[in-house]
Amino acid sequence: MNETSFLREIKEIDMLNQALGLLEWDGQTGMPDVSSSFRGDVVGYLNKLAFEKNTGPVIQEAVAYFSEHPDELSEVGSEVFNEVKEEYERNYSIAPEKMEAYHGEISKAHTAWLNARDKKDFAEMKTAIGNLISFLKEFIPHWQKEEKTPYDVLLNQYEPGLTVEKLDQLFSELKTGIMTIRQEIAEKGTVPRTDFLSRHVSKEQQKRFVIDVAQQLGYDFSKGRLDDTVHPFMLDLNRNDARITTRWDENNFSMAVFGVIHEAGHGIYEQNIDPKYDYTPLSTGASMGIHESQSLFNEIILGSNRSFWKKQYPLFQKYTEGTFDDIDFDTFYRGLKETKASLIRIEADSLTYPLHIIIRYEIEKMIFNEEVSLEELPKIWADKYEEYLGIRPENDLEGILQDVHWSGGSFGYFPSYALGYMYAAQLNHTLKQEINMDDVLLSDNYAPIYNWMTEKIHRYGASKKPNELIVNATGEALRSSYLIDYMKSVYFDVYQIKE
Amino acid sequence: MNETSFLREIKEIDMLNQALGLLEWDGQTGMPDVSSSFRGDVVGYLNKLAFEKNTGPVIQEAVAYFSEHPDELSEVGSEVFNEVKEEYERNYSIAPEKMEAYHGEISKAHTAWLNARDKKDFAEMKTAIGNLISFLKEFIPHWQKEEKTPYDVLLNQYEPGLTVEKLDQLFSELKTGIMTIRQEIAEKGTVPRTDFLSRHVSKEQQKRFVIDVAQQLGYDFSKGRLDDTVHPFMLDLNRNDARITTRWDENNFSMAVFGVIHEAGHGIYEQNIDPKYDYTPLSTGASMGIHESQSLFNEIILGSNRSFWKKQYPLFQKYTEGTFDDIDFDTFYRGLKETKASLIRIEADSLTYPLHIIIRYEIEKMIFNEEVSLEELPKIWADKYEEYLGIRPENDLEGILQDVHWSGGSFGYFPSYALGYMYAAQLNHTLKQEINMDDVLLSDNYAPIYNWMTEKIHRYGASKKPNELIVNATGEALRSSYLIDYMKSVYFDVYQIKE
Repeated sequence: MNETSFLREIKEIDMLNQALGLLEWDGQTGMPDVSSSFRGDVVGYLNKLAFEKNTGPVIQEAVAYFSEHPDELSEVGSEVFNEVKEEYERNYSIAPEKMEAYHGEISKAHTAWLNARDKKDFAEMKTAIGNLISFLKEFIPHWQKEEKTPYDVLLNQYEPGLTVEKLDQLFSELKTGIMTIRQEIAEKGTVPRTDFLSRHVSKEQQKRFVIDVAQQLGYDFSKGRLDDTVHPFMLDLNRNDARITTRWDENNFSMAVFGVIHEAGHGIYEQNIDPKYDYTPLSTGASMGIHESQSLFNEIILGSNRSFWKKQYPLFQKYTEGTFDDIDFDTFYRGLKETKASLIRIEADSLTYPLHIIIRYEIEKMIFNEEVSLEELPKIWADKYEEYLGIRPENDLEGILQDVHWSGGSFGYFPSYALGYMYAAQLNHTLKQEINMDDVLLSDNYAPIYNWMTEKIHRYGASKKPNELIVNATGEALRSSYLIDYMKSVYFDVYQIKE
Repeated sequence: MNETSFLREIKEIDMLNQALGLLEWDGQTGMPDVSSSFRGDVVGYLNKLAFEKNTGPVIQEAVAYFSEHPDELSEVGSEVFNEVKEEYERNYSIAPEKMEAYHGEISKAHTAWLNARDKKDFAEMKTAIGNLISFLKEFIPHWQKEEKTPYDVLLNQYEPGLTVEKLDQLFSELKTGIMTIRQEIAEKGTVPRTDFLSRHVSKEQQKRFVIDVAQQLGYDFSKGRLDDTVHPFMLDLNRNDARITTRWDENNFSMAVFGVIHEAGHGIYEQNIDPKYDYTPLSTGASMGIHESQSLFNEIILGSNRSFWKKQYPLFQKYTEGTFDDIDFDTFYRGLKETKASLIRIEADSLTYPLHIIIRYEIEKMIFNEEVSLEELPKIWADKYEEYLGIRPENDLEGILQDVHWSGGSFGYFPSYALGYMYAAQLNHTLKQEINMDDVLLSDNYAPIYNWMTEKIHRYGASKKPNELIVNATGEALRSSYLIDYMKSVYFDVYQIKE
């Protein structure tokens, strides 16, 4: 075994994944629906080839050999090897048939979820979701290394190094912070005008505006593209091909505008990873949370910034050809940042959003660390919404059935969304000390912002762990206070509350 | 070895080819240019996997086993086996390294071709093209079975069963026929008005019209899609996903209109192959020539039909919103069918087009059967254009350098274009005896036409040889007279010549 053979095998896996990426992108953007069973077969087959290689003889031999001879690896070779070894050790001890059976259950659970949504009744998917949870509980001891609780193991799959202990504290502070802000707003806030948000803006007008904004933010359309889809996503085949997608609503322009700004953040990350990681598993984001930090930095941190909109609003008015001539900047900006409790996470505003995540986190912990019975979940869900957000779902469709994640086996994934938000606020806090954000955001050149992000985050790809990246970039581990402070500054301004 | 294992291997090859198809389609429609080296690697790797399987142990064993035990195969299994065995026997005796070296030469020849075009000088690619020809001359004895001459072997790769002897006769009749018609037109024809062909028609107007027409012709957009590209093509991933592409010129609507009608013909073919051939090499057209028969039947046979345009012109006028209000039907139809000698094949009209093909055929034969020296080719080319078309290229770019085929090693491929045209005319001749074409083309329902094609051609996929298909469909082997007769009827009408 030598490094060249090892990296060749890694490259082949990456090439299979690039082909799979394109098949996935195409399936969600333009493939004829009736072709889906052919597509399913092709994707299944290439996934099988990639999976077999991931745990196959070449990787097995490489893990054995380079564990004994780490000095024979170059710097990049060694970084790649550490990642591959970690992944290998996570999965090799699980029998492939068991993993296959689990993936079969995921298919069934997805169907059960669709059926349950139809009936608006969680009971319809209880068995299927129970089976998934049983599989995961069986896998957890295989995956477990230093983690203290079963749920810590799941968390670590998406955010390496994160613990329930840390997250409990972060989320508890965040919850208190948000609830306090909401209280202040309810008591002393002046509600902004929002009627103009539903004015008709054509798809073409929205598109021209948001393409312009995405470019200013650093998304390079020569290394990507924008397509329509039902469920927006970014998909990177490689650093020169990181595609974004969106959906459009002509009577709710802010959906696509913020959606594209969000996906562009993911795309910019992928476009700027160091080429030395090409064709390796390090050529992607460090974690789900760090990836979200880049999309949410664009969407929420910059997207909540008064100076950002001061610069962009005239552009928006130009592209929308007179539709907003009667709306002054202050009215426009305040309307964009309205906050109002909602039952549906993906429609939530940027203040209440983390509460949706915290509710899911608390329930996930109960499932894996406290053996709650599945029957109780819909009531627990509804009670928490009532307690944290002051509203109660009328049925399971508005409640526990709204997200696809659990029926896909993705437990431990939700926290990433709130982690990314906190990372983004903390990065913003540091960045503000190095450059004058208002000046930059009012100028025609956002390069100081995205160059800083590339320097601190993007270029490393997955070669560093989330905590290492954040400590290097900001001088300290993740804290919740920066986000709470940012929320306060934005929402007290919008709701005209003087502290 | 049993049929299930054999067909599983065939299915895996087909699934790799479906992934390759999507990578190819994407590369030509929307992939960021800067991603092309990544894409090249991925395509190279999947091609290698497919190639290894095609000549790999499973196929080897299947060829050996089922040659001895043909009775153990089902009907479809047996049809697939015959095709696979033929392909295997064509290639297994050529060393993979030799084939790889040949593909390396193709890359070089492509670069040399681009360079030669830049310099307008064939001499710049003489060495590269000479190397390709040497490789092919080395391969021919491996490929040869019953074929009498080296060029017969090349012909058979694209049109199984075709011989130089047959083709010499067909092309000689066709050449005489076309030259006689051209003579008549020159002497007695009334030249149609064509100025309106360059009127501005927006891409969106063209698109709406031609999508409507393609649907009437039987192209099913729920099993395909239409995208923009530089070099138009149809690409089938499977019978439920046969995608067409086109390019647009707002000052030359007929390019995209006939282009889409052409590609839709290819697409309809693929969409209607019997599902029993799914995931096998039989799930595609019978040959290049038969495939072209379907696109050219749409583009030229129906597209030259007065009744077809009688029905479509009001639609065209509606979609172009008044641009052609002053052009009466007769003027429009006659303008569409103008004939004029041109130096560039892909811009040729439907009367002179076969002459371009015949010139290339005659030169290809000289290269492989008569050992002509490469130095002489540009002059031979120019002389033939002068003799057959009455015009002479001023340089090699307008002459021998215009097509990409030879630098891609595709010798023997050009005849397909003219074969397809003759097949189309012969199919039309038979079809006319079974249904009243004028009535159908004037009606709102073209189903009798495309259903007949599906019945006679499409459904068989590649399970029958070209000659078998044509004899079954029309009662006789390919003849040139039907095309000559059709050309006469169309062009004498357009040029107002009374016989």
